[in-house]
Amino acid sequence: MKIELAKSYGFCYGVKRAIDIAEEHPNSATFGPIIHNQDEIDRLKKDYNVDLVDSVDKALEHDTLIIRTHGITKERLKTLKKDSKKVINATCPYVTTPQQIVEKMSKDGYTIVIFGDKNHPEIEGVASYSVDKERTFIVLDESELVGLPLGVKVALVAQTTRKPQKYQEIAASLVVRVAELRVFNTICNATFENQDATDELAKKVDVMVVIGGKNSSNTKQLHSICKSKLEDCYHIENERELKKEWFKDKKHCGVTAGASTPDWIISSVVEKIKELSSS
Amino acid sequence: MKIELAKSYGFCYGVKRAIDIAEEHPNSATFGPIIHNQDEIDRLKKDYNVDLVDSVDKALEHDTLIIRTHGITKERLKTLKKDSKKVINATCPYVTTPQQIVEKMSKDGYTIVIFGDKNHPEIEGVASYSVDKERTFIVLDESELVGLPLGVKVALVAQTTRKPQKYQEIAASLVVRVAELRVFNTICNATFENQDATDELAKKVDVMVVIGGKNSSNTKQLHSICKSKLEDCYHIENERELKKEWFKDKKHCGVTAGASTPDWIISSVVEKIKELSSS
Repeated sequence: MKIELAKSYGFCYGVKRAIDIAEEHPNSATFGPIIHNQDEIDRLKKDYNVDLVDSVDKALEHDTLIIRTHGITKERLKTLKKDSKKVINATCPYVTTPQQIVEKMSKDGYTIVIFGDKNHPEIEGVASYSVDKERTFIVLDESELVGLPLGVKVALVAQTTRKPQKYQEIAASLVVRVAELRVFNTICNATFENQDATDELAKKVDVMVVIGGKNSSNTKQLHSICKSKLEDCYHIENERELKKEWFKDKKHCGVTAGASTPDWIISSVVEKIKELSSS
Repeated sequence: MKIELAKSYGFCYGVKRAIDIAEEHPNSATFGPIIHNQDEIDRLKKDYNVDLVDSVDKALEHDTLIIRTHGITKERLKTLKKDSKKVINATCPYVTTPQQIVEKMSKDGYTIVIFGDKNHPEIEGVASYSVDKERTFIVLDESELVGLPLGVKVALVAQTTRKPQKYQEIAASLVVRVAELRVFNTICNATFENQDATDELAKKVDVMVVIGGKNSSNTKQLHSICKSKLEDCYHIENERELKKEWFKDKKHCGVTAGASTPDWIISSVVEKIKELSSS
């Protein structure tokens, strides 16, 4: 069986940067998972004694605290900065941008519309920067805009990992509802590139393996792209989840990985697929 | 034969306002046709001695000069104001808005994209307010955006009489091409209302008469809406163009009129249709 990697996959700039920051600060702690990948979190703990904390109380037990790639809420960051000894912000710069836009636009009187998942930490963080919470709306579909008190001017931002087409639809829907719409293209190119490469690869294989955290939004999107192209595609976090029967009678296996998946995991997966398909 | 008027038709706010201004200034002149309706222009000349001039030289022969509803270029307005004795601006406020937006946004470093017809006086006027002509683009379709040097931030305005759906498509296309897109909804509601009412009426009649200037953009759009619904629809400027054979064997005639068509012309047309269809 032929095994082929997507032309673009895995770690994006923001994740690489956050991992570098963590490695440069041994014995620190990250507030929330630094990236959506448990194996990489385990590696940072084992090799660099980088801890993972999920409450302000626990955070204060550490001298150095690292803010994860997805960012945290403005209020929480303020508390940590006040109480902690040292706070290092590893928020991806592509996430910092919508945070700043939301803060500035809400101060300028724009109603804020965020295209994203309201339960995702990135979006909780971005939304927290609005100075007018009652005029801040988070939607995943243009149908959710109906009946919202949008006012006359709206600023629109997107979760960095969302699909551009849906964002265009939401923007188009808003154009005729308000006097002024300010659309910021905050979708990350790395996400597009991984998505386009996955789409291309999924078309020509008969089985596809997508590697990434089960709660990773961008990995789930890669998996959904594959699902639209072929029946046999599997979302795994590491090589231990692979099953021999997936590759039975298959001729061509595609492999891709979400933005939080380190190369060493991808290599282990590829090695294991080779083993399972040849034995 | 039943004759039915569209629920909304004819003069919009800006046109009513311009006619009032002209009537309040007898013996003045308008620079370019004040509205796209020759019969109304003739009436203003006959009843109020309001002249029509089309050059700066001729304009200077008058004490009072009226700027037409569609506006004129910034440069020309400046020349007239400097040289004329009195300049009264009857530019529709809904046209003044995109002029001001284009001026402000181009000063703020935005590339200007105008959705409209580059040969229409309104658009010539609006575009003239850009302080950076090389970064001002006029398009009628999103395909014309391909390859344009748009830069990172774009401000988008529309000709007041354009269809919202096409505007949404152009906006959607720009969302993913630039970092920031600022869309101003400069399409006039009066146009929507006349269009919606025409669409509704065209569905239930077997012949349709559209009244308005042959060079009136909004009247041409009403005609095009009718054409998509039924074969027998006619664009006329006044009752003298009506033909008896249009109404032969017809049961239900719809009548609508563009934003520059005065009520007295519409009444004459309806009377003439009655006469032709009953004789």
